[in-house]
Amino acid sequence: MTAGTGASGAAGPAGSPADRAAVLADAARAGDRRALARLLTAVENHTPLAEHALRRLYPQAGHAHLVGITGPPGAGKSTLVAALIAELRARGRTVAVVAVDPSSPITGGALLGDRVRMQSYAADDGVFIRSMASRGHAGGLAATSTTAAVVFDAAGFDVVLLETVGTGQSEVEVAAAADTTVVLEAPEMGDEVQAIKAGLLEVADIVVVNKGDRPGAQRTAAQLRAMLSGGGEHSRSKRPEILVATAVTGEGVPELLAALDRHRAAATLGEAPAARRARAAAQVRAVLVERLWDRLAGPVLAEVTAQTLDAVARHDTDPYAAADALLAALARQELPQEAS
Amino acid sequence: MTAGTGASGAAGPAGSPADRAAVLADAARAGDRRALARLLTAVENHTPLAEHALRRLYPQAGHAHLVGITGPPGAGKSTLVAALIAELRARGRTVAVVAVDPSSPITGGALLGDRVRMQSYAADDGVFIRSMASRGHAGGLAATSTTAAVVFDAAGFDVVLLETVGTGQSEVEVAAAADTTVVLEAPEMGDEVQAIKAGLLEVADIVVVNKGDRPGAQRTAAQLRAMLSGGGEHSRSKRPEILVATAVTGEGVPELLAALDRHRAAATLGEAPAARRARAAAQVRAVLVERLWDRLAGPVLAEVTAQTLDAVARHDTDPYAAADALLAALARQELPQEAS
Repeated sequence: MTAGTGASGAAGPAGSPADRAAVLADAARAGDRRALARLLTAVENHTPLAEHALRRLYPQAGHAHLVGITGPPGAGKSTLVAALIAELRARGRTVAVVAVDPSSPITGGALLGDRVRMQSYAADDGVFIRSMASRGHAGGLAATSTTAAVVFDAAGFDVVLLETVGTGQSEVEVAAAADTTVVLEAPEMGDEVQAIKAGLLEVADIVVVNKGDRPGAQRTAAQLRAMLSGGGEHSRSKRPEILVATAVTGEGVPELLAALDRHRAAATLGEAPAARRARAAAQVRAVLVERLWDRLAGPVLAEVTAQTLDAVARHDTDPYAAADALLAALARQELPQEAS
Repeated sequence: MTAGTGASGAAGPAGSPADRAAVLADAARAGDRRALARLLTAVENHTPLAEHALRRLYPQAGHAHLVGITGPPGAGKSTLVAALIAELRARGRTVAVVAVDPSSPITGGALLGDRVRMQSYAADDGVFIRSMASRGHAGGLAATSTTAAVVFDAAGFDVVLLETVGTGQSEVEVAAAADTTVVLEAPEMGDEVQAIKAGLLEVADIVVVNKGDRPGAQRTAAQLRAMLSGGGEHSRSKRPEILVATAVTGEGVPELLAALDRHRAAATLGEAPAARRARAAAQVRAVLVERLWDRLAGPVLAEVTAQTLDAVARHDTDPYAAADALLAALARQELPQEAS
């Protein structure tokens, strides 16, 4: 398709990006973990190889259960994820994790050390954990992480966990884009956390009060149940199930897995579950934006685009007039291609 | 322009959305605070009125100094903003604040009470404070908040402060989109905050170590200076100035204002400062995405769009093929309009 992207793409066993993508995609599906890791890197960097690979993998995906796990800092997300992995593995199910790191917006390096804990699963082929920087992703963090989930899904993992810290609009969207969204709470957290919690509850399908061995846990769960079962001033689209667990000891984790399975069974009764349609829309939208921006920055339109953006920066024109001018330029460019 | 959007738009003193927008925009520029508040609501809700008003206001804007203020929870952002307002007012400069609240992603209500403090300026026409929910904004939170800043700019405010909590990719982008970005730190914060800080430093033009009366403040500032002046492993695009302040007493705030003025003078030496070009691009991009999505959801293409997204949700097609199909449908729709 995209012929000649560089000298190395001319010949050899690797061939074109499409050929190399096909080889990698098939290897990942056959269980090659290095191929899987390379595909995930390509997805994160939005390379042409990623597009070719995803086109091949997408029809194979759609079978995994995507589970979002979020909560305020200190609620114990990593510990719960580790406990869920152990529970899933004990039942013979495979699991992949996309862990979004609150990392540098520019260099994008992972800064928290708590992923290290999960490396105890390095020898288990039924577990794959991938950290993903939360730095700017074209089309949004949620679109990139659900695309990574598609790769795991096509590679045959039964469950894909999307883990993010619940502070930040983009970060919450990642967990909310899953089939089932788990919000983790802990008893007795500070005031600033209370505000975060209230926002998070609205995206929850299941709320887990973690650290269930602490005095306030049952009371916190009772308060949440009272709060969420009441009529309330705004109509809730979701009425989450409330569980108590102690991730460190594993207590309550089998019950969480049962709740996840129940939610999934209920959600897939309809033909195209709302979460899947929303994910599809977000993914298509991300590609649309990238396509448009690529064309605007491409050889034909780069100069017009730069001049238009400069005029907006100087306040000589407004963003609406500029956008309409660029859309008209794109439409004119489109004609010869579409007319044939 | 957009004739007949409803029965109420047919006649009367208010007239078309364009007419009403013109009346509101001119009133806001003349100092009418209720008109200003209504325009800001329209911007946040992406109404047709907002577009008409912005088209009128955009050419009048470009004179205010946009200052982003961010930092980890507990660093003292609201206190510093209050101190900066007092300092600016003492010098006869007017100031507007766009404060992004870490609020509910769905109902969008402001949940933190610390805005209340700022209501002491309610009687001062030279100060305007506006809380904005951080819930999903079409085109992104940064685009919406810089558009709100355009309204304040056109209304004649000398300085516009964009205040956000520094946890979350979208939230950091808001502050990073300003002409000058201030990152607030405090001595002796926890480990989790250290990680947040490291990411924030990369968007900083000025770093303020707040709570300067505490023992560790000067040491924290010295460490930051050593860290940021070193070569480092990655080349820094910015080399921020480090200040120490005590926002509660106002100590160091005149020096911060002097640093802000210096940074602005340096940044405007070139013809189109990088921050302004980046903001223009983000604003145009947000409009482009909205325009496309509106057309795809419009009467002509709604059915094709829904079918295409359903096919992606069922994994019968992939997001790339779907995006290309929708772009082709858009291009065909464009032809009759462009050919005339």
